[in-house]
Amino acid sequence: MKIVVIGASGTLGRAVCTELKTRHQVIEVGASHGDYHVDATNLPNVERLFHEIGRVDAVVTTMGKLHFGPFHDMTADQFWIGLRDKLMGQINVVLAAQHHVNDGGSFTLTSGILADEPIRHGINATTVNLAVEGFVRGAAIELPRGIRINAVSPTVLEESMDAYAAYFRGFEPVRAHRAALAYCRSVEGAQTGRVYRVGA
Amino acid sequence: MKIVVIGASGTLGRAVCTELKTRHQVIEVGASHGDYHVDATNLPNVERLFHEIGRVDAVVTTMGKLHFGPFHDMTADQFWIGLRDKLMGQINVVLAAQHHVNDGGSFTLTSGILADEPIRHGINATTVNLAVEGFVRGAAIELPRGIRINAVSPTVLEESMDAYAAYFRGFEPVRAHRAALAYCRSVEGAQTGRVYRVGA
Repeated sequence: MKIVVIGASGTLGRAVCTELKTRHQVIEVGASHGDYHVDATNLPNVERLFHEIGRVDAVVTTMGKLHFGPFHDMTADQFWIGLRDKLMGQINVVLAAQHHVNDGGSFTLTSGILADEPIRHGINATTVNLAVEGFVRGAAIELPRGIRINAVSPTVLEESMDAYAAYFRGFEPVRAHRAALAYCRSVEGAQTGRVYRVGA
Repeated sequence: MKIVVIGASGTLGRAVCTELKTRHQVIEVGASHGDYHVDATNLPNVERLFHEIGRVDAVVTTMGKLHFGPFHDMTADQFWIGLRDKLMGQINVVLAAQHHVNDGGSFTLTSGILADEPIRHGINATTVNLAVEGFVRGAAIELPRGIRINAVSPTVLEESMDAYAAYFRGFEPVRAHRAALAYCRSVEGAQTGRVYRVGA
């Protein structure tokens, strides 16, 4: 398969690429690294990307900024960070790429454990991750030509614990290569409208 | 109790106000009708509203535009409609009003049946409604002073079937006054972080 991975240079994206490359042609896309660059928050920019890449069999997104911070003095602009980046960034990818994915192809988006398990200062992540899952639920019944769409919702990665441990006390982290397997289940499996939870 | 209802002039808002007024002081707020006017998509505007109203015991939101239309040619701007209006509109209300709600007070937001039951052309609603539920889940553990937050998720209203019947074939509508009872359960009950589903 010809698979585009957007967010390929992140911890999770690298692990997904490594796993998929053992069996498939992988095109790595990032904001500033990889075979192609894209600003996913900008739909025309994403459309241009897929015009350049052409037909593909699967699209994986492992990208998206979120805001972490206390709710009592959160600003609207801070809340917009996750909506604009992790949510609309991934939605823009599906909006643009739906016309370039082959029959029976697939999308695999990224949610996260905070959808199910809220933590202090994590309200932006809980909101955005559930929105991503809602988007997948809605898109699954509307995408044409047997195109599937799923999300992977990993718990915190072991590789990210240096930065995030204080937020995730008591959470059991998983290594990125284990989370990457769920992306393979989505890309190479046959289900649609699913959320694959890893380490929840 | 002193209760602010934002979206008071809509079909659902009117029913909620009617029910709450039998026992409480209700302040009706709308975009262009009611005791006060507000543009909920604008946080400074919502902050000004609550500075004018002062301390309250409960805030209910029954507002928010969504976009309905086919996904294959949906634009990012169309997708933004629900994110900016129904999602960030309600979030702006909580961001602003959290500093004006009395100890042990509450917020009650509005999700909707499409969170659980996707329909054709309803992807914006499914995404936004689940995002609202995620926001409630995240806020419930972070709001101080015993302030509670819940959402009500009604199915399609009988009063709205003239406009929406074609989208909701096979759905059993409920009358607005029945949906209004769920708002009372949230406002006058003791739970937090809950979604009250009506007619699902």
